Amino acid sequence: MTGSVQTAVIGVTGYAGAELARLLLHHPRLRGTPPVFAGRVDEKDAARGGVPLAEIHPHIVDNNGSGDLRQEAFSWELLAARGVEVLFLATPHEQSRAWAPEALARGLRVIDLSGAWRLTEAANRAVYAFEDDDPELASATQAQAVYGMPELHRAKIAGARLVANPGCYSTSVILPLRPLVAAELVDLECGIIADSKSGVSGAGKAPTAKTHYMYAADNLSAYGAFTHRHTGELLEQIGVSTEQIAFVPHLLPIPRGILSTIHVRFKQPQTRESIAHVYREFFSGSPMVRLYGHTLPQIQYSVRTCYADIGFQLDASGRRAVIVSCLDNLLKGASSQAVQNLNVMYGWGEAEGLE
Amino acid sequence: MTGSVQTAVIGVTGYAGAELARLLLHHPRLRGTPPVFAGRVDEKDAARGGVPLAEIHPHIVDNNGSGDLRQEAFSWELLAARGVEVLFLATPHEQSRAWAPEALARGLRVIDLSGAWRLTEAANRAVYAFEDDDPELASATQAQAVYGMPELHRAKIAGARLVANPGCYSTSVILPLRPLVAAELVDLECGIIADSKSGVSGAGKAPTAKTHYMYAADNLSAYGAFTHRHTGELLEQIGVSTEQIAFVPHLLPIPRGILSTIHVRFKQPQTRESIAHVYREFFSGSPMVRLYGHTLPQIQYSVRTCYADIGFQLDASGRRAVIVSCLDNLLKGASSQAVQNLNVMYGWGEAEGLE
Amino acid sequence: MTGSVQTAVIGVTGYAGAELARLLLHHPRLRGTPPVFAGRVDEKDAARGGVPLAEIHPHIVDNNGSGDLRQEAFSWELLAARGVEVLFLATPHEQSRAWAPEALARGLRVIDLSGAWRLTEAANRAVYAFEDDDPELASATQAQAVYGMPELHRAKIAGARLVANPGCYSTSVILPLRPLVAAELVDLECGIIADSKSGVSGAGKAPTAKTHYMYAADNLSAYGAFTHRHTGELLEQIGVSTEQIAFVPHLLPIPRGILSTIHVRFKQPQTRESIAHVYREFFSGSPMVRLYGHTLPQIQYSVRTCYADIGFQLDASGRRAVIVSCLDNLLKGASSQAVQNLNVMYGWGEAEGLE
Amino acid sequence: MTGSVQTAVIGVTGYAGAELARLLLHHPRLRGTPPVFAGRVDEKDAARGGVPLAEIHPHIVDNNGSGDLRQEAFSWELLAARGVEVLFLATPHEQSRAWAPEALARGLRVIDLSGAWRLTEAANRAVYAFEDDDPELASATQAQAVYGMPELHRAKIAGARLVANPGCYSTSVILPLRPLVAAELVDLECGIIADSKSGVSGAGKAPTAKTHYMYAADNLSAYGAFTHRHTGELLEQIGVSTEQIAFVPHLLPIPRGILSTIHVRFKQPQTRESIAHVYREFFSGSPMVRLYGHTLPQIQYSVRTCYADIGFQLDASGRRAVIVSCLDNLLKGASSQAVQNLNVMYGWGEAEGLE
Repeated sequence: MTGSVQTAVIGVTGYAGAELARLLLHHPRLRGTPPVFAGRVDEKDAARGGVPLAEIHPHIVDNNGSGDLRQEAFSWELLAARGVEVLFLATPHEQSRAWAPEALARGLRVIDLSGAWRLTEAANRAVYAFEDDDPELASATQAQAVYGMPELHRAKIAGARLVANPGCYSTSVILPLRPLVAAELVDLECGIIADSKSGVSGAGKAPTAKTHYMYAADNLSAYGAFTHRHTGELLEQIGVSTEQIAFVPHLLPIPRGILSTIHVRFKQPQTRESIAHVYREFFSGSPMVRLYGHTLPQIQYSVRTCYADIGFQLDASGRRAVIVSCLDNLLKGASSQAVQNLNVMYGWGEAEGLE
Repeated sequence: MTGSVQTAVIGVTGYAGAELARLLLHHPRLRGTPPVFAGRVDEKDAARGGVPLAEIHPHIVDNNGSGDLRQEAFSWELLAARGVEVLFLATPHEQSRAWAPEALARGLRVIDLSGAWRLTEAANRAVYAFEDDDPELASATQAQAVYGMPELHRAKIAGARLVANPGCYSTSVILPLRPLVAAELVDLECGIIADSKSGVSGAGKAPTAKTHYMYAADNLSAYGAFTHRHTGELLEQIGVSTEQIAFVPHLLPIPRGILSTIHVRFKQPQTRESIAHVYREFFSGSPMVRLYGHTLPQIQYSVRTCYADIGFQLDASGRRAVIVSCLDNLLKGASSQAVQNLNVMYGWGEAEGLE
Repeated sequence: MTGSVQTAVIGVTGYAGAELARLLLHHPRLRGTPPVFAGRVDEKDAARGGVPLAEIHPHIVDNNGSGDLRQEAFSWELLAARGVEVLFLATPHEQSRAWAPEALARGLRVIDLSGAWRLTEAANRAVYAFEDDDPELASATQAQAVYGMPELHRAKIAGARLVANPGCYSTSVILPLRPLVAAELVDLECGIIADSKSGVSGAGKAPTAKTHYMYAADNLSAYGAFTHRHTGELLEQIGVSTEQIAFVPHLLPIPRGILSTIHVRFKQPQTRESIAHVYREFFSGSPMVRLYGHTLPQIQYSVRTCYADIGFQLDASGRRAVIVSCLDNLLKGASSQAVQNLNVMYGWGEAEGLE
Repeated sequence: MTGSVQTAVIGVTGYAGAELARLLLHHPRLRGTPPVFAGRVDEKDAARGGVPLAEIHPHIVDNNGSGDLRQEAFSWELLAARGVEVLFLATPHEQSRAWAPEALARGLRVIDLSGAWRLTEAANRAVYAFEDDDPELASATQAQAVYGMPELHRAKIAGARLVANPGCYSTSVILPLRPLVAAELVDLECGIIADSKSGVSGAGKAPTAKTHYMYAADNLSAYGAFTHRHTGELLEQIGVSTEQIAFVPHLLPIPRGILSTIHVRFKQPQTRESIAHVYREFFSGSPMVRLYGHTLPQIQYSVRTCYADIGFQLDASGRRAVIVSCLDNLLKGASSQAVQNLNVMYGWGEAEGLE
């Protein structure tokens, strides 16, 4: 298999970063070209050449040599010296906001896993309250950003210098809705309900009151109704207005996985086949989406895979549907979608390294 | 505290039966009058006077003598001999369908925890496919049944001979919706979405593929969309038609608890206070409902309590709301609601023995 | 029921503090005499009379008025003004170390739930590295302390001014072992193994890397082998030397509950009855210990009860036994044992308020 | 990569069978040679060529064609027609007992994942109560069986016709103990304690009272103390007598993974380095064992890997050690060890397809 590329990963210490590392280390195109891992490293660790991955994530290294890999002290010079072409930012959005323009200026292509560059409309970006040193540069950078969902924007991603990798919830809501809304089947007057449920890894690695085992276990809680940061992505990518969709996320007592239950009304009665046809057409050529037939997907079938699973059920009248989508928030909701974007950017098979 | 009554419980072996036993054993009105526990008992166990509760449910007995209680071989004569006045049926609906008429004929008052007598409309009952020996008797029995939700039917329950204790999901959806629909606030054209999530105990004690730990753990799955048996209760008690509500239950990886996320549109813009007012008025005098202020209820706060918790959040326009209700499916969703009905039937404090 | 006492609780915000509050609020002797809750309260909250319990622990308040209770700003004057006689310290051991002498000096009786005053031997206390302002006072205070395990020290607890409530692991290991070692049955040459497993609440409420859901869930880990702080309690209370017992705790992926698997060799072959007899004798008059017959206790049967459950199994030779003990780390392992001590101190029924 | 072999799997419907299928489908030597899956198939399914794997295990198929694979109706003729050389039996031990001799007679090599052929000593086999049609044939078959733990019997496995794949618990106890006992370091007078904890998948896929979510979740229970079926494997492979080891398994509330905590006394004081040296020597050349340095392994690091992880801690005297081993019961405890044996039998790299 020919064609490789030197990548770098900033933020390997987080959950998505760990999965990203695992995928890149086993990617058939990248054998022999492991990513450069870089980040904040204290002096003592810098002196020993960085922190071994084996200490950060014992579970992603094997007995084959990957145990020797290290997270090194970040510098732009390090990336240049190693010939890095593509930079993955698995970093907080503030950091991505600061680093992406610099990386682009240095000729790197960037795949950013944060929320920093996903939103085109200023109104939608307001929830992030970005404080940019240079608003003009930020604006110019945003103009280059492509929303990194290959099923919607494959062609643009191929040529992109800056890919804004979608949010996990967003992926689970946009994929099942965009085909139906684009086909103008959905009654937007009555609006769409996206009732989503995510495992705890979605809340990040920082220990907080809400990620404490005692809070999350044996519990379910709704949060961020009408106000969650991912809402803007839904509006822009599905093509609906604020009043036309209600998004309510919940915290599930499981480590990983998102299930979104989406409730829609149709303008005209539909049949199982009419809806299935729309999905098949839309996702033909999209290897990372699995369409379900007569059953609904479940979290356990998509967790630890790189797929988004979609299924649906109509009511007797054909006027209403419940659509269920499932994915792994750390994979199709983050790291494997990033690798899928890499595949598209380099003209490789879209599913390479993801099955 | 004066006034007691001899009760009997059929079906103590199940999850709801166990909780019912626990509540009745600790009820202040029933000290010294423990329930008669009866059911199918094999010959060997009958010979030793029945099966000790301590063997069936080690966790509901204490060192104070309740360990001596037994599930005895059921017979109508046993109940008569013990002076039983109130019969709790924590039995499959087929059994409740057969036994309730007989019990009424023998002068007992019945609180039935199954789905046997909850539905007035024949169309709604169709999902149960009841095969009654005597359709006329069944019809006459149904005519006596009162839907056992004190918050809606307190006065009728007081005088009822047959109380049909509500379903667990139904309780979690009817309580938050009935006040708003009764006040004619809800836009029923666009319809109501009730997206419910229940712990595994709701699926019963029989080991099945779906109650296997490996199926339920680390998972979430939707099931019974548009067709769940509890839907008929929603229609009759909320006062809406099939097209006006979509009910979709999910199986949560937790032992107990239901959270229902209910999505509504209002005919006119509402305020936090206008909605709170409706709820306060409706539930004034209802001690087993807790209204939340600015936060939403969570499963962990209602599990192992006898309360239904209700909270809500409006969107910026005041035109849409997300209402969250939580309860313990084995308590307010089954056994404690049954005891609440007992309290109402005997004129005791509605919350006695439930706090 | 006559005889009450004014108590105060410091540390109601923690897990054990919450359970302690719940028990005291429902204790039959303390109806009408709720505890004073006191602690660090910021100015804003002090201005409104403290933080409502309903905000700290929504699940321990009911609709009966306990929602009005507050955690007030601590001062010795507050305690005096309220007529507090007994002070529960559910505080870190450093704080208990500082406050207990002061409380005693002010004439209060103290039940301390921390590790501050449990250890008689200086060598065993070394792991805590206490930094006492006044070593002499500390030494005099320690001399007054009684180890608060009623099953071992009932008489001394009755008259104690300072009760050192045992550790959770300690309780689960001492109770099953003390009777056998006291009866000189155990071969101490080969040593005892105490392999203990605890739910996450044992690690406290502070969010840390180890209490993060993603660390604890779907996992099991051993920690503190040979060095855990509770080891000293085992030595002193069982009456063995360091070499004679190995204690290895594990972190279980459950909210609450401890199961200790204890492996012993006997000097002489034993029978099921000989061992059962020793236990029955030792725990006769101990209402909070439940002895199992032919089955072994499980965590699910003791969680949310105030009991310690003990069962055992012999090998074919009668020379070896596996003893299993279970308890709820927040109840018999902390708060309910504290209330049990209160009962003993005031001559009430030892099990009052605990069943 | 050259050299392939046609395999067949009986029992793909179970948990271990599913993992075995996944490993074989992705094994680099078996690309283009997927296993034949065979078993009991009803007439209707036989008519459509068997049951699609995609229906049995939605999670192990991908979009690359493996969805077309089917479990076909078993017959010896089918295996012959497909040119099967190696037969994996992921079947109940009764079935393996009946089928292995037949398979050998037909010239197949067999890797049996059940307990049917693991035990050399009749006394140890007694717990299985085998009812063989032909005791002589059974005896001759047993004589050919090699215990399939490459770390102990690599050379014999290479030439074996019948490999008896070890039990999951057995693997987790034998690997850490055999090196120390072989080096004659362990004080066998006082005996060894193996306190093991396993996730629920170890109990199999059949829904039972003990695999019900409500039994397993939030619980821990010990079972089979001194009598578990895997005990015989420990005796034969570690080389100790019944009195010299106590094995007590527990059921953990997690889907997968085993952690064994092993308590030993040494004849002479040891150092960290002396023990580490013994392990390093023993496992040099064993790629599927990972030795831990100063930390202990945890279940989360070995689950979903094909490794057995081993770590240990000494007490201050060097006379006692706690050894912790972790593995995934469905992988190194079953299916990946079976593939490891396949690798050894065909002279491939022992870790091929397992990293």
